[in-house]
Amino acid sequence: MWRSLRPLGRSDATGGYRRYAWTAADADCRLWFRMQAEARRLDVETDRNGNQWAWLGDPTAGDAVVTGSHLDSVPDGGAFDGPLGVVSAFAALDELRARGVSFRRPLAIVNFGDEEGARFGLACVGSRLAAGQLTREKAFELRDADGVSLPRAMEAAGYDPEAIGPDPERLARIGAFVELHVEQGRALDLSGDPVGIASAIWPHGRWRYDFRGEANHAGTTRIADRRDPMLPYAETVLAARREAELAGAVATFGKIAVEPNGVNAIPSLVRGWLDARAADEATLDEVIGGIQNAAREHAARHGVELGVTRESFTPVVDFEHALRDELARILGESAGKVPVLGTGAGHDAGILSASVPTAMLFVRNPTGVSHSPAEFAAEDDCLAGVRALADVLEGLACH
Amino acid sequence: MWRSLRPLGRSDATGGYRRYAWTAADADCRLWFRMQAEARRLDVETDRNGNQWAWLGDPTAGDAVVTGSHLDSVPDGGAFDGPLGVVSAFAALDELRARGVSFRRPLAIVNFGDEEGARFGLACVGSRLAAGQLTREKAFELRDADGVSLPRAMEAAGYDPEAIGPDPERLARIGAFVELHVEQGRALDLSGDPVGIASAIWPHGRWRYDFRGEANHAGTTRIADRRDPMLPYAETVLAARREAELAGAVATFGKIAVEPNGVNAIPSLVRGWLDARAADEATLDEVIGGIQNAAREHAARHGVELGVTRESFTPVVDFEHALRDELARILGESAGKVPVLGTGAGHDAGILSASVPTAMLFVRNPTGVSHSPAEFAAEDDCLAGVRALADVLEGLACH
Repeated sequence: MWRSLRPLGRSDATGGYRRYAWTAADADCRLWFRMQAEARRLDVETDRNGNQWAWLGDPTAGDAVVTGSHLDSVPDGGAFDGPLGVVSAFAALDELRARGVSFRRPLAIVNFGDEEGARFGLACVGSRLAAGQLTREKAFELRDADGVSLPRAMEAAGYDPEAIGPDPERLARIGAFVELHVEQGRALDLSGDPVGIASAIWPHGRWRYDFRGEANHAGTTRIADRRDPMLPYAETVLAARREAELAGAVATFGKIAVEPNGVNAIPSLVRGWLDARAADEATLDEVIGGIQNAAREHAARHGVELGVTRESFTPVVDFEHALRDELARILGESAGKVPVLGTGAGHDAGILSASVPTAMLFVRNPTGVSHSPAEFAAEDDCLAGVRALADVLEGLACH
Repeated sequence: MWRSLRPLGRSDATGGYRRYAWTAADADCRLWFRMQAEARRLDVETDRNGNQWAWLGDPTAGDAVVTGSHLDSVPDGGAFDGPLGVVSAFAALDELRARGVSFRRPLAIVNFGDEEGARFGLACVGSRLAAGQLTREKAFELRDADGVSLPRAMEAAGYDPEAIGPDPERLARIGAFVELHVEQGRALDLSGDPVGIASAIWPHGRWRYDFRGEANHAGTTRIADRRDPMLPYAETVLAARREAELAGAVATFGKIAVEPNGVNAIPSLVRGWLDARAADEATLDEVIGGIQNAAREHAARHGVELGVTRESFTPVVDFEHALRDELARILGESAGKVPVLGTGAGHDAGILSASVPTAMLFVRNPTGVSHSPAEFAAEDDCLAGVRALADVLEGLACH
C-alpha cells in the first residue's frame, strides 16, 4: 500500500511532498484512495465538501464507526502526517477481516480534503465545512498564492463548488470517529511507548502581520529617510520567540512574502504569518497580545504601518472522555497501559469533536520531526499502530 | 517619447515597472529604442553583450562622445531610473539639431543591457561583460529564480550567447561617456539645484546569507528542540541596521527566500540578501564584518548553519577629474555653478570608468524615492537635465 502512495506528489528536488488541495497531486491521492477502497469492496462516495468516504455496511444505518485522516501535505511535507492514518485504516480493516470478526455497526474510512491548508491558508477546510465551522461565504473568499479562489480550484478539479456547506446529516451517521496520526512531538519517544491516546488539542491560530513601509533605493536612501518594514518584522520574530518561551507556548513565523523583494530595494511590504499555540486560551491570548504589542511599538518606531489579521482560530479541544476511556480500556486489555497525551497540532478530529464523539491515537515519532521530509515512524511502531487501531475498531464495531 | 515608453513592462497591479533582462518587456523596450534611433536617422547596432548603440557619425572613427543609460528596471521600479538617461539623450540630440550645431566627433546613444540585475542577481551585466569585469564563464553560471541560465534566456530572446565577452575594441572607440540619471537621494533637493555632477560612487556589494536549520511542525516542536533559521536571520537584519548606523553607511536586507515557506512549518532555510554600501572600502569592510560576526554568533546559538556568499562587489569609483572639471566648466558657462556630489548607487558609468573617461549628471529627485513606483522628477527639472546634457555634448563634440 505504501509503495503505491509513496511517489504521488513527491518533489524530486527536496524529497518532500507537495500534495496541495485540488491539484494534480491531490487528484492522484484521491484516485489511490478509491482504488484501495474498491480493492476491499468498500462503497466509495465523495461528499459535498470533497471528503472521500469508503463504506463497509449501510452508510444510512447510523451509529457508524469511522476512522481515517487526510492525504494532503504541507509544502515539502513528510510521508506520514495524514497518510499514516489512512493507510493504517485500510490495514486495520485487512487485519479485522483476517481475524474473521463480524461487524454489528457500519464502518467507514475517510480521507478529509485540504487538512493542511497549504494552498488556501486555512487548515481543515473539508471537515470545517462539513461541521459548519466554516461558512460557504468565507470558503468562497479563500484564494491561493496565484489568486485562484477555492471554488475555481474545485471546479478545475471537476467538483461542484456550489454544493459545499454544512453536512449535519452525514455527521449524524457517525457514532464514533477515531483518527490515527503520527505523533508530532517526542512524548511517546520519551515515555518509550509505540502508541498513545490523545487527551486534548491545544488552542491554536494563525495571524497575518502586514508591515507596510516605503519602497526605496537600498543604496542611496539615508537611514534617517527610511521606512523599512523588514526591521519591525525582524523585531516581531524575536518577540514571538521571547513571548512563547516565557509562557511555555510555541509561536512561529514560518512564512513570509516581501514586495518588491529586490536585492537593492527597501521593501514596501513585509507580510509574515504567525502560528501560535498554547495549553489553554488564556495563555495563548497573553502570548498573542505580547507579540502584537511588540510589533506595534517597533512598527511605529520605524514609521511603518501595521495590520494584523486573524486568519484562523481553533479553541481548545478536549476529546470526549467516555470514548477516550473506552479506547484506554480496549487497548489496556490487548496491549497494556497506553499513555494519554496532549498535542499542539490541529486535526480533523479536533474539528469533528464538536459534532461527534471523537478520539485520536498517536504513533511514536522517534525524532519528533514533522512537516519535513525527515518525518519518520519505525515500521514496528506503524504495525503496532495498525494493531491498536484494529483492536479499537473491533472493540467498538464488533462486540 | 515618454508616452510611448510609459506602458512598456508596467504592472497594472502596482503601477511599477517589471522590465527584466531578456523578457518580453525588455524586448519591447529594445524595440522602442530602435524606433527612436531610426526616427532620428541614427545607425543602430546591438553589441555582442546585448547593449544597444545608436550612432551619429562613423562608429569606427574613434574618440566618440557617448551618452545614455539603461531601460531595464528593478521589480516594481519607477519610470525614471535608467529611462531618464536614454530619453534625455535623444531629447538632447533633438535640442542640438535645433541649435544647428555641427559635430566634429562621432556621437552615440547607448542602452546598456541588464543594469539592475533584477533577474540574474548581478547588476550591470551588459557593461561588466564589455569592460571585462565579468567573465564569460561566470556569466554562463548566472541563473534566474526559475533556474533559467543567462545564456538560455539570451537565446530565448533571439541573441547568440556564444558571442558574449570582453569588447575592448568597442570601448576603445569612446572618447568620453556621460550618463544622465535621476538622483536617488535628496542632495539636490536639499541644495536647491535641478542638476548636479557626480564625484564618486560608493563601493558596494551584495552578500547572500543562507541560514539552514531544520524543518519541523510549528505546533508540536518544543522550543528547546527547534533549529529555526528565521531567528538568526531576524537578529542579522537588526545587526545590519545597527552596524550601518554606527558607520554612516547603508545596509539593507530587501530580498528573502524561505523554504518550505508554510504557515505551520518551522523553515529549513531562510536565505536573505544583504546590500551594503559605504563612502570608502575600509568602512564597508567594517560594516560587513560586524554583520557577519553577529550572524555567525546568532546562527550558532540557534543550532543553525550559516553560509555567506559574496555575489558581487564594486570598488569605489572616483570619476575622472579632467572630464568632471570639463563638465563643471561647460555648465558653469551655461547654467551657473553646479554642485558635485557622491552617490551610493551603482551605474554602468561606474563600470565603464575603469576603461574610458566617464562622467555623470544627476537630475533632482524631490523625495529621494527610487526603485519604487513613487520615484519622481519634475518636468522642469527633466528639461533642465536635457539642456545640461545638450550643453555638455555640444561642448565635448562640437567645439
